[in-house]
Amino acid sequence: MRRVKLTLTYDGTAYRGFQLQPNGPTIQSVTEEALSRILQEPVKLRAAGRTDAGVHAREQVVDFSDLGARPLETILRGGNALLPPDIRILSAEEVPLSFDARRHAAEKEYRYFLHLHPVASPFFSRYAWNIEKPLDLAAIREGLAHVVGKHDFSSFRGQGCTAETTVRTILRAEFCEMAPALHFIGISGAGFLRHMVRNLVGTLVDVGKGRISPERIRELLSLRDRSEAGPTAPARGLFLWKVWY
Amino acid sequence: MRRVKLTLTYDGTAYRGFQLQPNGPTIQSVTEEALSRILQEPVKLRAAGRTDAGVHAREQVVDFSDLGARPLETILRGGNALLPPDIRILSAEEVPLSFDARRHAAEKEYRYFLHLHPVASPFFSRYAWNIEKPLDLAAIREGLAHVVGKHDFSSFRGQGCTAETTVRTILRAEFCEMAPALHFIGISGAGFLRHMVRNLVGTLVDVGKGRISPERIRELLSLRDRSEAGPTAPARGLFLWKVWY
Repeated sequence: MRRVKLTLTYDGTAYRGFQLQPNGPTIQSVTEEALSRILQEPVKLRAAGRTDAGVHAREQVVDFSDLGARPLETILRGGNALLPPDIRILSAEEVPLSFDARRHAAEKEYRYFLHLHPVASPFFSRYAWNIEKPLDLAAIREGLAHVVGKHDFSSFRGQGCTAETTVRTILRAEFCEMAPALHFIGISGAGFLRHMVRNLVGTLVDVGKGRISPERIRELLSLRDRSEAGPTAPARGLFLWKVWY
Repeated sequence: MRRVKLTLTYDGTAYRGFQLQPNGPTIQSVTEEALSRILQEPVKLRAAGRTDAGVHAREQVVDFSDLGARPLETILRGGNALLPPDIRILSAEEVPLSFDARRHAAEKEYRYFLHLHPVASPFFSRYAWNIEKPLDLAAIREGLAHVVGKHDFSSFRGQGCTAETTVRTILRAEFCEMAPALHFIGISGAGFLRHMVRNLVGTLVDVGKGRISPERIRELLSLRDRSEAGPTAPARGLFLWKVWY
């Protein structure tokens, strides 16, 4: 027995999210199938964080156990040969048998990309949410600062979220311009609720549009009522950016 | 009569280049059709620079004349409503009747993107040439410096090039890292031969691989023999980046 940690990168556009689904391909189903073919044994992946349909990963970490019949280099090269080009294995390493990609993830960073320009870009259309009208960037930054720390995120919890507790700790939050007109909201924490980042971003864009004040983010955290917060931002702008162990 | 200058941006992946072709859609055919529908008169575009099949434009400049029946804002908004999302009009302005997007272009910059990483990225696959093995970046930079100035570029002329003279002047050439592992070769000049940038890049990658020396670029310019230079780099990494008037 051996436990293997893989770092994956994927464009989620064509997939119904990471996790196995009854209908349609998922990152998990396609990757498990490729690995099972190489290893000639069933492979069951565990992931650092689930990503929803259409959400991307710059770096997703998964693990699985196998009998160790093949060298790691074969998993890396053979996996990339069998996988479609929108899913790539960046690295493969052996880890202690006790390793668990989900439970041992100390911190995860998500980045949500906003293309702030009157005309949508052909190059960013699958990877960013285009907002045509100018936003108040200082107001977004002010609103974003309220999410840092330990809070009850019930107001930003997605439908179908089955988490037992809605308290989460946000370690870092930043709003940066990565390239002209291409901004991102980066949020890091040990754990997140379903749709939490997209619901926060949708509400922060409402702040940027002047529909609500930056202080409203703090109020929403105390209200603990999903119906009071803003809309869910589209999946395409969201990336699981990095996982720390 | 009025002359209109449009700045376009497009993802060339799905097109057979800019210029009208007997088979398959081109940027020109699709854009002329959309504009003709809005203006209710035939529209004939002239472009600052032709781009080949699969080549992109961050900024392409075109012009056309019309009867002036519709405001420029209608051309911009209506054009973007009718055009597919991989072609966008960034701006529309009225220019003197004598304006000619091709003849009056003082300088054009092309950028060729190289993704230098052992694993191809799902996000760059349509926009960069992935090179798995490490390249000697200093050697590429040294070779690139030889192309600046006035030279006979016969060795880097593509098949089917019909230019009367093969002498061109390169005003600037740079090799930069834009993001981790994402580099570009930027080349500016008043005019280029067919496939010239892609042939230069293919040869410079041979320099980076150590197959030929940086000085070989200078020799190739004097040899004026296409068969002596390196391969043509794939279209997908090339962008018409900016046009100056």
